[in-house]
Amino acid sequence: MSVPRFSLNSQTIKQWSLEELVSGCVAADVSAVGLWREPVQEYGLERAAKLVRDAGLSVTSLCRGGFFTATDPAERAAKLDDNRTAIEEAATLGTDTLVLVSGGIPQGGTVGDARSMVADALAELAPFAGEHGVRLAIEPLHPMFCSDRCVVSTLGQALDLAAPFPTEQVGVVVDTYHIWWDPQVREQIVRAGREGRIASFQVADWITPLPEGVLLGRGQLGDGAIEMRALREVTDEAGWAGRPIEVEIFNEALWSRDGSEVLRETLERFTEHVL
Amino acid sequence: MSVPRFSLNSQTIKQWSLEELVSGCVAADVSAVGLWREPVQEYGLERAAKLVRDAGLSVTSLCRGGFFTATDPAERAAKLDDNRTAIEEAATLGTDTLVLVSGGIPQGGTVGDARSMVADALAELAPFAGEHGVRLAIEPLHPMFCSDRCVVSTLGQALDLAAPFPTEQVGVVVDTYHIWWDPQVREQIVRAGREGRIASFQVADWITPLPEGVLLGRGQLGDGAIEMRALREVTDEAGWAGRPIEVEIFNEALWSRDGSEVLRETLERFTEHVL
Repeated sequence: MSVPRFSLNSQTIKQWSLEELVSGCVAADVSAVGLWREPVQEYGLERAAKLVRDAGLSVTSLCRGGFFTATDPAERAAKLDDNRTAIEEAATLGTDTLVLVSGGIPQGGTVGDARSMVADALAELAPFAGEHGVRLAIEPLHPMFCSDRCVVSTLGQALDLAAPFPTEQVGVVVDTYHIWWDPQVREQIVRAGREGRIASFQVADWITPLPEGVLLGRGQLGDGAIEMRALREVTDEAGWAGRPIEVEIFNEALWSRDGSEVLRETLERFTEHVL
Repeated sequence: MSVPRFSLNSQTIKQWSLEELVSGCVAADVSAVGLWREPVQEYGLERAAKLVRDAGLSVTSLCRGGFFTATDPAERAAKLDDNRTAIEEAATLGTDTLVLVSGGIPQGGTVGDARSMVADALAELAPFAGEHGVRLAIEPLHPMFCSDRCVVSTLGQALDLAAPFPTEQVGVVVDTYHIWWDPQVREQIVRAGREGRIASFQVADWITPLPEGVLLGRGQLGDGAIEMRALREVTDEAGWAGRPIEVEIFNEALWSRDGSEVLRETLERFTEHVL
């Protein structure tokens, strides 16, 4: 029986190849996936697009563009080119959503400089994205990633960055893992809906202790501190009702297990804690 | 030569006993310290008060009260009693500032519940603190500590919690380590000054990768991403000019070195990156 609204981000079961992901989803009656660029590129873009299309899967997002904080002009130009390529890849895969991880603080720079560079890069890329029917989805990352991964740290800040652009060109990602702690989380989700900016809704749980480097500390749904259902309800009321919910968990324990078993568990947890 | 405004939080050189801390500070011409309850209790409260007083040291803060998120009534009452004891200890040590680490999410509870419990506990403790000439200093902790250590995650939220109480009873801690990433950090520091709430200014730098558990990941001044001087200037302009700046770094590498050498280095870094 199909679980409504469920989309499996490929990183949740990273141990699966792209073909295993597609066949695993079909076997489990999962009809939507979120993809990452690297496995798609390795498999071949057109071939990957055909693989998911032929299996009847929809692609809810492509991850990721971004990393806009290069200071060297040549490096910056290369990054923008790479983002244009990512936009084209998203269009080819049939998704209208390219998730952006904006990048950390450049060597010798300040967090304020870095944030300005994100705004500048959006201005360069947004029209190109729009021409390809792709929306740039600014993802605020948890503040623990601010220095080295993403200087966009709150949903409110992401919305401020998106504000100058047409809603069909730039939106935001609402990811429970990154924003649950924010005293303003509910009002900012409501604002995101009101402003027509919600481009993606992702879920993972918050567990402690965090591992060294903190990147792989995300928890299976229901294992942690986040009120997943309450945040889903707020997001639905903000206009996301009926839209896909992507499960994106980076967790080495999940990666060490049988993929089908992880998917079965994740579907159960999703039904129990999110829907 | 004395370094102006420098206060050494005892945890920065945790390898020192209380007597070593006092003699080490005197030898280095450091005239202010921030203390923690446990070493003071082990040494004896009155005896510790005499030790620092006789050495001519001022105590800029006592750390810590808080952990207000017990759900069991007896446990909650015990916590409040313990906070009253901490207030008395602060008064005995001659400091007017008790730092509060508010506590994480109670088992089975929500972050919203936990935040309400902090507000309730402040209401119970604030008048008692005022009677003892001690100010409760709400410390927002970095959002990575939200679930297990402190549900107060931003300076703005700390100020909202402090707002119902007289300024002489409840203030906030401005700690660069916890709040530097906040897109609103400058305006919230300005607000803290305008509202008369700055009770303590603490500094540590942000370095990555974070260690497992993240607690001991703080960096020596100048080693990380934080614009220490810029935040000091904002805080000074908000009304803190000339007041003590407490250096509070939890870092195992610093703890494994000779204390006097760490203090010498910290004084140099303080002069170079903060003043």
